[in-house]
Amino acid sequence: MAPQTVNIGVVGLGRMGKRHVHTLVNRTPRATVVAVCTNMPHELEWARNNAEYKEFDIAIYEKYEDMLNHPGIQAVWVSTSTDVHAIQTKLGIQKGLHVMCEKPLSIHLDESQEVIDLAEKHPDLKVMAAFSRRFDASYRDAAKKVLVERTIGKPYMVRSQTCDLLDTTGFFVRYATRNGGIFVDCAIHDIDLTLWFLDNPVPKACWGTGTLQHHPELAASDDVDNAVGVVEFWGGKVAYYHCSRTQAAGHDVSTEITGTEGKISVNLVPRANNVIVNDKRGMTHEVQEEYWQRFEYAFETEANEFIGSIVNDSPVPVPLKMGQKVMQIARALQSALWSGEVSKWNEKGELIYEGKKETGMNGHAK
Amino acid sequence: MAPQTVNIGVVGLGRMGKRHVHTLVNRTPRATVVAVCTNMPHELEWARNNAEYKEFDIAIYEKYEDMLNHPGIQAVWVSTSTDVHAIQTKLGIQKGLHVMCEKPLSIHLDESQEVIDLAEKHPDLKVMAAFSRRFDASYRDAAKKVLVERTIGKPYMVRSQTCDLLDTTGFFVRYATRNGGIFVDCAIHDIDLTLWFLDNPVPKACWGTGTLQHHPELAASDDVDNAVGVVEFWGGKVAYYHCSRTQAAGHDVSTEITGTEGKISVNLVPRANNVIVNDKRGMTHEVQEEYWQRFEYAFETEANEFIGSIVNDSPVPVPLKMGQKVMQIARALQSALWSGEVSKWNEKGELIYEGKKETGMNGHAK
Amino acid sequence: MAPQTVNIGVVGLGRMGKRHVHTLVNRTPRATVVAVCTNMPHELEWARNNAEYKEFDIAIYEKYEDMLNHPGIQAVWVSTSTDVHAIQTKLGIQKGLHVMCEKPLSIHLDESQEVIDLAEKHPDLKVMAAFSRRFDASYRDAAKKVLVERTIGKPYMVRSQTCDLLDTTGFFVRYATRNGGIFVDCAIHDIDLTLWFLDNPVPKACWGTGTLQHHPELAASDDVDNAVGVVEFWGGKVAYYHCSRTQAAGHDVSTEITGTEGKISVNLVPRANNVIVNDKRGMTHEVQEEYWQRFEYAFETEANEFIGSIVNDSPVPVPLKMGQKVMQIARALQSALWSGEVSKWNEKGELIYEGKKETGMNGHAK
Amino acid sequence: MAPQTVNIGVVGLGRMGKRHVHTLVNRTPRATVVAVCTNMPHELEWARNNAEYKEFDIAIYEKYEDMLNHPGIQAVWVSTSTDVHAIQTKLGIQKGLHVMCEKPLSIHLDESQEVIDLAEKHPDLKVMAAFSRRFDASYRDAAKKVLVERTIGKPYMVRSQTCDLLDTTGFFVRYATRNGGIFVDCAIHDIDLTLWFLDNPVPKACWGTGTLQHHPELAASDDVDNAVGVVEFWGGKVAYYHCSRTQAAGHDVSTEITGTEGKISVNLVPRANNVIVNDKRGMTHEVQEEYWQRFEYAFETEANEFIGSIVNDSPVPVPLKMGQKVMQIARALQSALWSGEVSKWNEKGELIYEGKKETGMNGHAK
Repeated sequence: MAPQTVNIGVVGLGRMGKRHVHTLVNRTPRATVVAVCTNMPHELEWARNNAEYKEFDIAIYEKYEDMLNHPGIQAVWVSTSTDVHAIQTKLGIQKGLHVMCEKPLSIHLDESQEVIDLAEKHPDLKVMAAFSRRFDASYRDAAKKVLVERTIGKPYMVRSQTCDLLDTTGFFVRYATRNGGIFVDCAIHDIDLTLWFLDNPVPKACWGTGTLQHHPELAASDDVDNAVGVVEFWGGKVAYYHCSRTQAAGHDVSTEITGTEGKISVNLVPRANNVIVNDKRGMTHEVQEEYWQRFEYAFETEANEFIGSIVNDSPVPVPLKMGQKVMQIARALQSALWSGEVSKWNEKGELIYEGKKETGMNGHAK
Repeated sequence: MAPQTVNIGVVGLGRMGKRHVHTLVNRTPRATVVAVCTNMPHELEWARNNAEYKEFDIAIYEKYEDMLNHPGIQAVWVSTSTDVHAIQTKLGIQKGLHVMCEKPLSIHLDESQEVIDLAEKHPDLKVMAAFSRRFDASYRDAAKKVLVERTIGKPYMVRSQTCDLLDTTGFFVRYATRNGGIFVDCAIHDIDLTLWFLDNPVPKACWGTGTLQHHPELAASDDVDNAVGVVEFWGGKVAYYHCSRTQAAGHDVSTEITGTEGKISVNLVPRANNVIVNDKRGMTHEVQEEYWQRFEYAFETEANEFIGSIVNDSPVPVPLKMGQKVMQIARALQSALWSGEVSKWNEKGELIYEGKKETGMNGHAK
Repeated sequence: MAPQTVNIGVVGLGRMGKRHVHTLVNRTPRATVVAVCTNMPHELEWARNNAEYKEFDIAIYEKYEDMLNHPGIQAVWVSTSTDVHAIQTKLGIQKGLHVMCEKPLSIHLDESQEVIDLAEKHPDLKVMAAFSRRFDASYRDAAKKVLVERTIGKPYMVRSQTCDLLDTTGFFVRYATRNGGIFVDCAIHDIDLTLWFLDNPVPKACWGTGTLQHHPELAASDDVDNAVGVVEFWGGKVAYYHCSRTQAAGHDVSTEITGTEGKISVNLVPRANNVIVNDKRGMTHEVQEEYWQRFEYAFETEANEFIGSIVNDSPVPVPLKMGQKVMQIARALQSALWSGEVSKWNEKGELIYEGKKETGMNGHAK
Repeated sequence: MAPQTVNIGVVGLGRMGKRHVHTLVNRTPRATVVAVCTNMPHELEWARNNAEYKEFDIAIYEKYEDMLNHPGIQAVWVSTSTDVHAIQTKLGIQKGLHVMCEKPLSIHLDESQEVIDLAEKHPDLKVMAAFSRRFDASYRDAAKKVLVERTIGKPYMVRSQTCDLLDTTGFFVRYATRNGGIFVDCAIHDIDLTLWFLDNPVPKACWGTGTLQHHPELAASDDVDNAVGVVEFWGGKVAYYHCSRTQAAGHDVSTEITGTEGKISVNLVPRANNVIVNDKRGMTHEVQEEYWQRFEYAFETEANEFIGSIVNDSPVPVPLKMGQKVMQIARALQSALWSGEVSKWNEKGELIYEGKKETGMNGHAK
C-alpha cells in the first residue's frame, strides 16, 4: 500500500513561497510538490537553477492559469502578495482544487466575502486561511491551558506584539504599498490570537496611533512603521497591540493572556536558541531573525494539517471566514490611526462609526 | 564633629508610612525621626506599642498641627491619603519645614498648582515629589543608557505597566474612592517614567479603556480594576500603559523603552529573588508581593537624597512641578476612560478637548 | 528526475527506534523506510497495528538477518540495546549496507575496536556513530562561536550534565543492567561534547563518585542513580559532569564551555516551550520531559546528514572511532566510581592506572 | 529613651573594610563606628581625607593595639588579610571585646582551634564567623524551602561555584600568596553552604584539580586560577565545586541543591539588575561586577544581626567553630589538588589520608 499523497502547486516564490516549498518537500510526507509558479523573473531564474526542484521533478510556471492545469494537480498554496490572494484563491476553487491561502485573504472586506461565499458553494474542497500561529506548539500549549485546563480562570485581556527586525534593504517598504496599512499587515495574527484566547469576543471600540521612525517614505502611502492600538470588546474584554517594522535585535513576537486567576505569556523573552554568551558585556542571547526562525515548525504542522484535512476529508483547522472577523478589526484600527477618532461597533458587532481618512489629525497620516 | 542630621516627622502610618519610618531609622543615617502622626486609632495603638519607636524616642501625635510644633522638627514626610497631601504640604511649608510629599500632590490640578506656587515662594525649603521609581537602581541604569550613553538611539516609545497583586482583603477598594481613578492612582509612575525617558514630550492625544473583573463595587465610584491607555505625543512619540489591581502572581511592574537603535526593558520578568524551584510542575520563581519588595532600596535612596538636599542645600532630585505634568496626562486618560472619547492637546500642551464623564459610553464607567 | 533516495531498515522499536522511524518517514525526504525489525513481542504487535507503517508499506521482521535480506535495502539504523550494537553493526557491514549505530558501539573497548577495524576495511560504506547532540542547532551554534569565531578565547573547561526525569516505572532500571554503568550510559554525550569543544584533549586523570537515591535495586549491578565526575586533561583542561536518573522537573541537559575570554552556556535554563504561567505560586515554565523533546530536530538533522552522506558519497559527520575515545574516558570514570581511586593516563593518552572494582571503598558500589 | 548602640572599631581598610564601615554607618542604626585601623599608608591617607569619617567622628589608628584602647569601644570587626585574623581576634577577646571575624579564621587548623578555645572561655563575648552568604535573602529563602518546608524532599547534592571577575590589575595575585590556596580562599563559602543545606554531613572522600589560565605567576605559590573539586559525604551525599578567578562577565556565584523530589537553584543566571538591552547583538543583561554588588544587602543583615546579638545578648547567628569544619574540607581539597590523590575521612569525620604536596603529579602544582 502506498501512502496517500496530495499533488500540490505553490504560487509565489518570495521568501515565504520558497519556504513553503521547502516544508512541503522535506517535512510533509503526504504532500508531493508538482509545480511552482511565479511571474517574477529573478524568482523564475532562481527556481530553474534549483537543484532540489530538479531532483524532486517540480514543474515551473510563469502563469498561474497554466499551473492550475498541471496534470494531476489537486491543491494550491497561495503565497503571493495580498492584492492577488482573493483572485488566485477563487481561480483555484473554480478549477476544483483545494486551496491554502496566506493571510489576509484581501484587504477589501467585500472581496474576501466573495471568496468565502464561493468556498461555501464547494464544501468538498478544503479552503483554509493560513493563520500560522495557531499551529505553533507554544501557542497551542497556551490555548490548552487557557481554554481547556482553565489555568488562568476567565481570560479577559490580551497584549500581543508583532515586532519585526528592521529591514534596512527597504524591501518591505516597496511591498507595503499593497498591503493595506500596518495594522492590516502586522496585527492580524495578534487579532486572530485575541479572538482565539478570548473566545470570539464582539468588538465595541478601538483606537490606535503610530509613528514613523525609519521609513519616512511610508508617509506617501499614509503608513507608519510603528503602531499601537487598543480594542475594547463587549463584555469587559480588552486587547492591545504593538506592531513594529524597526526592531534592532530580531523578531520579537510575544503575547500575554490575562485571566481572573493568572496570566500566561508566550515568548516574553525571545531567544534564537539555547545559547548564552558570557563576556565583558554581560550575558547575551540572540533573538530569532524573523518569523521563519520563530515559526519554522509551526509551518510544518500547518502544512501537514492542511494536507491531512484533504487526505482524511476532515474540516480544515482554520476556516476561511475566521480571517474576515480579524480583518474587520484590523481595518477599524487602521481607520482610527488615519483619522485620530475612535471606531465603534454595536453589540451585534456591526461597525457603527469610523473616522474618515481625510479627517486625519495625525501628522504621520497626513 | 557630629554628623549633620535632619529632624523629621512622618505623617501617615499606613503601610507606606510605617515603611518610610523604617527606612529613615535604619538606612538614612543623616535623618533623625523625631515624631510620627496619625489620626487612625489602630495605627496610633500600633505605634504606641512599637518597641523600635520607643527605643528611638519617636514622639507620637494624633494631630498634624501638633507634630508640626514638635521641638526641633525640620522636615515632614507626607505619607497620608491623596486627599490631604496638598493641605498637609502647605501647612508644612507655612511652618517653615522641608516637605517630602507622596505622589500625587492632588487629583485637582488647581489645588496642586497652589502648593507649587507656595513652594516657589519659599526657595529655601526643599519640597519634593516622591516619584520613587526615579531612585531605583535599574531605572537609573536604564536612564543612563537611554539618555546619556544613547544605547538605543533616539527613544520614541514607552510601554509601562503597574500591575498589583490582587488584594482579596478589599482594603484598596475602600481607599480607592478617594484617589481619582485608576489612571491617576496607578499610571502616574508610568507616565513619570515616560516623561523622563522620552525627554519631556508634549502630549497630543490619548485614549483608554478598562474592565472590572474582581471588584464590582468599584463601579459605584466609576472605577475599573484594569485599564489600558495609549498616549500620543507631538513629534512622533508614543506611550502605552496597563494598570491592574488583580494580578495573581505578585507585583508586576515592567517598562520597555524603544529607540531607533534598540530597546531597553526593565523588570520584564519580575523575580522576588534569585531562587528557582524545579519540581514536577517545572521551574518556578516567585514574584515580589508588592512594590515595597520591588522598590525597598529605591526608597532608601530617595530618603537619603531628600535628606542630602537639605543638608547640602542642593536642589531636590524631583521638583514638585514634575508631578503636575504627569497628573495632566493621567487625568486626560481618566476622561477618555470615562467618556469613551479621545482627549486632545495642542502643540503647546494645552488640553483642547476631553469627553465629559456623563457622555460615557463605556459600561464600566456608567 | 526522481529524488535519489536510500532504502533503509531500522532495527529496534523501543522508544527511540519508533522515533527514528517517525523522523525518517516524516522529515527525511531522501530516506525510504522499507523495513523495521524487533524481537520483542509487544513491539511487533504494536508495529503490525501501526497505520502509518501500513500506509508507507514498511515490512516488519522478527529476525535481524531477515531484514538485512529485504529486497533493495541499502542501509540500516541500529537502535537496539547496547549489548547488540556491535554485532548488528558488523552484520550490516558484512552485508554491504551503510550503518547508523546508536551510541555506544559497545561497552567493551576491544569489541568496538573490532567494528571500527571492520568498517575501515569497507571505505565505500558509510558507518556512523549517532552522537545526536552534534546535530543540535544550539550546540552547533556554540561550536561555531567557540571553535570558529573564538568568541571565548581559548576554551579550557567544560561543565556538562545529563539529568533525566525520574522514571517511576522502573523501565530504565531493568535496562540498566546491560549498559555498563551510569557514566557509560549517561555521560558519553557530555564527554563527546568535551572532546568537541576542547579540541580533542588527552586525558590525564579522573575521579568520580555517586549516590543511590531512588533506585536501591541498582546496587545489585554496582550502579548508582546520580554520579559526579571530574576529568583532568593534559595541557590544563578540565571537564566535570553530573549524571542523574532522578530529576523532578524533566530532562535537564546543560553544558557550559569556559574560555580565557568568556563562557558559553547551552540550555542553562531548560524550557519545554515559550510559555510561562503566572499564578499564585509565581512564574512557572515547564521543562522538556525527555531528550526526545529536547533533541527532536537534532535527530532530523542527523538522519538527513547520514542519508546525505550516502547520496553524495561524502564522509559521515561523526566517524565511528570518535565513540572509542569517549568510551575510554567513560570507563575510567566508572572505574573511579567503583574503586574510589583516581584513574590515570600518560601523555599519549594510554591508561596507566585504574582502581579495581573489588577494591571499592564506596558504599554505593559495594 | 535612646537606642542601645554598640561602639565598634573596624580593622583593615581594604575593599571590604571600607564597605563594612559604610554598612555600619549607613544601615546599622544600633552600631556606632568609633574607630578604624590600618597599617597601610595609602589606606591611612584615604581614611584621613574621608569626609564621611570626619562627619561621623571616626578615629583613625595605625596600630591595632591602640584601637583596642579607644575609649568606650565594645566590639571589633576584623577585616584584614587572613594571616592576621586569628591573632587580631584573640587580642580583641583578651581585651573583652566582641569580635566579628572575616572568614577564614586561619588557614592553620591548630591556630583557629586556639581562637575557638579562647572564645569558649569568654561566653559573655559574641565572637562570630562572617559567612556572609548565610545572610543573603535568596540563600535564606532556599534554606527555608529546603530545610523547613522540605520542598525538594531529602537534599543529597550540592553544586556550587564561586567564580570571580578576572582581575587584570593583579591585585588578588599579590594577596593570594597569603591565603592558603584557591579552595581555601574561594570554596569555603560553597562548603559552608553545603554543610548548611545538607544538614552537616560528614566528609568521606574528596578530589580536585585545577588549571592556570591567566595568572602563571601563581605557580610560584603552587596555586591555580581555576579549580574543580568533588566531595563525597558518608550517607550518600555529594557536593562539587568550581572556583575561578578569571570570569569575563562578572561575579558568577550560583548554587544548586538537589533533593529526592526537586532541585533549588540560587542565582543560576546572575544579573546585575533588572535591565535588559536589545540591540543588534541580541538581548544582554549585565552581571554583578563582584561579590559586593551581589551581597551588599547580605552584609547589612549580617552587621545588624551581629550587633543585635550583642544588644540582646543572644547567640551569634554563625558560631566560630562552623568555620573549622569548613576549613577541614577546604584543606583536604587543596591537598588533593596538590598531590593528585584522593583525601579520605573515616565515619567520625577524622581525616585518615591525604596526599603530600611533594608527591604532586599535577603540573599546575609542581
